[in-house]
Amino acid sequence: MKQPIVEKLLKELGRKKVKTDEGTLDERRHDYSVVFQLDDMQGKEAPRPACVVQPAGTVDVVKVINLCRKTGTIIIPFGLGSGVVSGVKAVADAVMLDMSGMKKIRRIDQHNLMATFEAGVRGSDAEAAVNKRGLMLGHYPQSMDISSVGGWVATRACGQFSSAYGAIENLVMGLEVVLPNGEVLETRLTPRASAGPDLKQIFLGSEGALGIITAVTFSLHYKPESQEYSAFYVPTMQKGFETQRYIIQSGWAPPVMRQYDASEVKRLFPEFTREEDCLIVLVHEGPAARTAAELSECAEIAVDTGCETAPKEIVLKWLEERNHVPTFESFLKEGIIVDTVEIAADWKKIGLIYKNAIAALNGVENILNASAHSSHCYRSGLNLYFTFAAMPADPDNMAAVYEDCWRRIMEATIKEGGGISHHHGIGRVRRQWMRDEVGQAGVDLLKSLKKILDPDNILNPGVLIPE
Amino acid sequence: MKQPIVEKLLKELGRKKVKTDEGTLDERRHDYSVVFQLDDMQGKEAPRPACVVQPAGTVDVVKVINLCRKTGTIIIPFGLGSGVVSGVKAVADAVMLDMSGMKKIRRIDQHNLMATFEAGVRGSDAEAAVNKRGLMLGHYPQSMDISSVGGWVATRACGQFSSAYGAIENLVMGLEVVLPNGEVLETRLTPRASAGPDLKQIFLGSEGALGIITAVTFSLHYKPESQEYSAFYVPTMQKGFETQRYIIQSGWAPPVMRQYDASEVKRLFPEFTREEDCLIVLVHEGPAARTAAELSECAEIAVDTGCETAPKEIVLKWLEERNHVPTFESFLKEGIIVDTVEIAADWKKIGLIYKNAIAALNGVENILNASAHSSHCYRSGLNLYFTFAAMPADPDNMAAVYEDCWRRIMEATIKEGGGISHHHGIGRVRRQWMRDEVGQAGVDLLKSLKKILDPDNILNPGVLIPE
Repeated sequence: MKQPIVEKLLKELGRKKVKTDEGTLDERRHDYSVVFQLDDMQGKEAPRPACVVQPAGTVDVVKVINLCRKTGTIIIPFGLGSGVVSGVKAVADAVMLDMSGMKKIRRIDQHNLMATFEAGVRGSDAEAAVNKRGLMLGHYPQSMDISSVGGWVATRACGQFSSAYGAIENLVMGLEVVLPNGEVLETRLTPRASAGPDLKQIFLGSEGALGIITAVTFSLHYKPESQEYSAFYVPTMQKGFETQRYIIQSGWAPPVMRQYDASEVKRLFPEFTREEDCLIVLVHEGPAARTAAELSECAEIAVDTGCETAPKEIVLKWLEERNHVPTFESFLKEGIIVDTVEIAADWKKIGLIYKNAIAALNGVENILNASAHSSHCYRSGLNLYFTFAAMPADPDNMAAVYEDCWRRIMEATIKEGGGISHHHGIGRVRRQWMRDEVGQAGVDLLKSLKKILDPDNILNPGVLIPE
Repeated sequence: MKQPIVEKLLKELGRKKVKTDEGTLDERRHDYSVVFQLDDMQGKEAPRPACVVQPAGTVDVVKVINLCRKTGTIIIPFGLGSGVVSGVKAVADAVMLDMSGMKKIRRIDQHNLMATFEAGVRGSDAEAAVNKRGLMLGHYPQSMDISSVGGWVATRACGQFSSAYGAIENLVMGLEVVLPNGEVLETRLTPRASAGPDLKQIFLGSEGALGIITAVTFSLHYKPESQEYSAFYVPTMQKGFETQRYIIQSGWAPPVMRQYDASEVKRLFPEFTREEDCLIVLVHEGPAARTAAELSECAEIAVDTGCETAPKEIVLKWLEERNHVPTFESFLKEGIIVDTVEIAADWKKIGLIYKNAIAALNGVENILNASAHSSHCYRSGLNLYFTFAAMPADPDNMAAVYEDCWRRIMEATIKEGGGISHHHGIGRVRRQWMRDEVGQAGVDLLKSLKKILDPDNILNPGVLIPE
C-alpha cells in the first residue's frame, strides 16, 4: 500500500514524475559511499524510500517541498549519486528528490562568459555545451562524468584545475534555490556586490540540508590559448611541499600542481618510477606568452629547490587516465575495503599530518595501502588526498576497519590543527568531527541556520550538523 | 545624569574605556557620509550616544555585548568612521563601540603568508607591518589611511588592485566575530574547506548588524617582482568597455584597469586631455616575465580594439594622487552637494546604465558635474563609479538634491538589471533598494539571519535590511 504522501504527490505531479517501482527505489537509496556499497553486499541495505520524485523544473520542486512541509515528510535531494561521504541515504518514509531530470541548459551568454544550468545537468554535459562556443567551466572534478552541477554546489566541490581557476565557490556567480518554506531565492548575477552577506554562500556546502539547489550560473573562461606540462622528481614529500610552496607563493598559478608520494608513484606511474622518489606534476595554461613564462620559471624554482626534471609524458599519462579509477565494488568483492580521504592544512602543518596519518594507517591490521598525494595548492597551504586499502581477516570487520582508518586520518589532522575536509564534504562520515572543524560557536550557528531555514527538519536530516 | 547602562559599563570596564565627554561623543556620532556632514552644518546633528566604549580586546567586546543584551541597549560598531553610505549614526540611548583601540597585530606568518590583525588596525598600518617582511595585503581602497581592517570586512570593501588580487572576500582567510549572544566565533584558518557553508561569509558585508568583527586574518602576497604601466586613449566609454572586456576575458589580470570618461579626464588629468577622449589606465605587476608578457599583450588588444597609446606618466600621476580627494566639507561650504555612487553590471548592461544615469543626473537642476569611471573588472562585467556635484539655488534643498541624484543613479541601474552597490555597501542610503537587489526571498532570508543572530535587534538597527 502506498504511503499517503505518495498519493498526494501522484495527484499533484502525475505518474511520470513519481516513481515507486522497486528498481528505481533501489537505485536511489544512497550515494556512492563505499560503506553503503559494503552494506548492500553484506545484506544490510538502506531501506527503500517512500518514492522517488523526478521534478521537471523548479515549479515541481516547489510543489514537492510545499507538500512535504505540510505533511512533515523528509526530502532527500539526490543529484547523480557520486557523493562519497554518506551524504545521501534513504529512510523508509522519505521522498528522494531525484534531480537528474532537471537537465536544461537555460542560457549560455558568450558576451559575459556566463552559463546557467539546471541543477541536474551532468558536469561533462555542461562542459561540452560551453566547449562548443570555445568556452570552459574551469571545474574538473574526477567525478566530471558522473556528478551534477547542483551536486558540486551542495558538496562544495573543487576540481583538478583549481590552483588557477579556483574551487566551486570561485566559479559560481549565482544560484536558484528552493527554500524549505517554498520561496525561490534567485541571487543576482552581478560581477561583484557589496550589498550585505553573499546569500549564495549559505548553500555552497549545504549538503541538501538547507535548501534545494535548482539552477547554477557559472562564470566561464575562454579555453586557453596554450597548454604546457612539466614534472619533477623529488626525494621526499616534505621537499616537494617546499617546491610547491615556492612556486605558488612566487605568484605563479599553474592550474594543476600535484605531488604523489613514492607509494602512489609506483602504483600510478610504474614505468616512470625512480627508486623512492616522489613526483610533482604540473599543467600550465593560458595565453601562450604567460604559459611559456610560467613553464620556464616553475622549472627554475623546482630545480633550485632540489627537484630533478622528469619526463613530461608523465603529465600526459595523468591527463589521459585521471578520471579512470577502479570501482569500490571491485575491491569489496575481493574482501578489500578501500577509500580516499582528503584534508587540508597550512604549509607548516601539512608535513606532520602526512607523516602521522600514514604512520597511523600503517598501524591498522592487514593494511595493504596507505598513501597520499596533494592535488590543490594555495598561498597558505594545500590539501592531502589519502588512499587506504585493507583486507581484514574476517570480512565482517570491514566496516569497523573502514571506521578505524577514517578515525586515524581525522585524528592525525585535527591534532595538528588541519581542516577535516578539503572537497568531499561532511555527510555522515565526518559529522562527529564538525565541532573540531568549526568550534562550538560554529556548530551553534549552523544549527541556527538549519532552524530558521528548515524549522521542521525535513531536508536531508542527519548530515553535516552534529547532534 | 548618566544613563543606567553607562553606570554598568563604567563598573565593568572602567573609566578609561567608557567615554562620556562631549568631545568624544560628538566625534563618534556618525560616519563620513556627506549627508550627515550636511546635517551637522545645517544644525541638524545626530543625537549624542549614551557613551562611547573603547574595548581593548575581544573580552571587552563580549562584556559589552552581554551587558547590552541584558538591558536591551543598542550597540553601534564604529571602525575608523570612513564609511560613506550612512551606515553609522548614533541614537540617544546607544552605546557606540569604538573599535579604534583594538589595533594589535596578532601574528604575521611569513611561511604561510598569513597575518591576523585586530579589527581596529588602520589599513595603512596593516600594510606597513607586512611590507616590512616583503609582503603585501593586495587590498588598497582609497580609504587605506582612514579605514580599519574590520571596517573593510563589515562593508565588503574592494581595493584598487582588485582585478588581480580580488576583493575583500577573496583576501580574508578567517574572522573572529563576537556574536550578539556573547559567543566568539573563530573560523578555522585552513586554505580551503568543504565543511558546510563558509560561515565567515555571513559577516562579510554584515554592516555591524549581525556580529562584531574583532579580528581579521588575511592571506598575503609577496610584493611583486616588477610593476609596469600602460594607458590608452579611446574615443567613447563603450569602446573602452570593449577593450577592457577583451583584456580580462583573454585571461590577463592587470591588477588595475580603470577607464575615465571625458569629463573625468579633463578634471583629473588636464595636462593629458585629448579632446573628448576617454582614458584607460593599467597597472601590471607580478613576476617580471609575466608582467612583460601582460604589458605587451594588453597593448596589442587595446590597439586592435581601437585605442591609441597614451603616455604612461598618466598612470604614475594616478598612482601618486589616487588617495587624495577633496573633503566633502570643502564643497558643502561652497553650497555644493557632492557624492560618489558605485554600481556594477555585466558587459551588456553597463553601457546603457552609464548613458542613462549620466543623462538622468544632467536633468537635475543646477548640476555641476555628472561623470563616471570604471575601476574594477571581472570576466562577467565591471563597476561604474559615478560622481555628482550640484549647487542648488536654495541651500535648504541640498539634502533633497542629494536624494534625487542617488535615486536617479539607482533607478537607471535597477532598470537595466545592474547591481546597486559595488563596494561601498548599503547602510541607510541604499536600504530602500535592497529588495530590488536581492528579491523578496533574499530580504526574507536576511531578516531571518538577523532574527536568529540578533533576536533583540540591538546591533546597529536601521541599516542594510529593509523594513
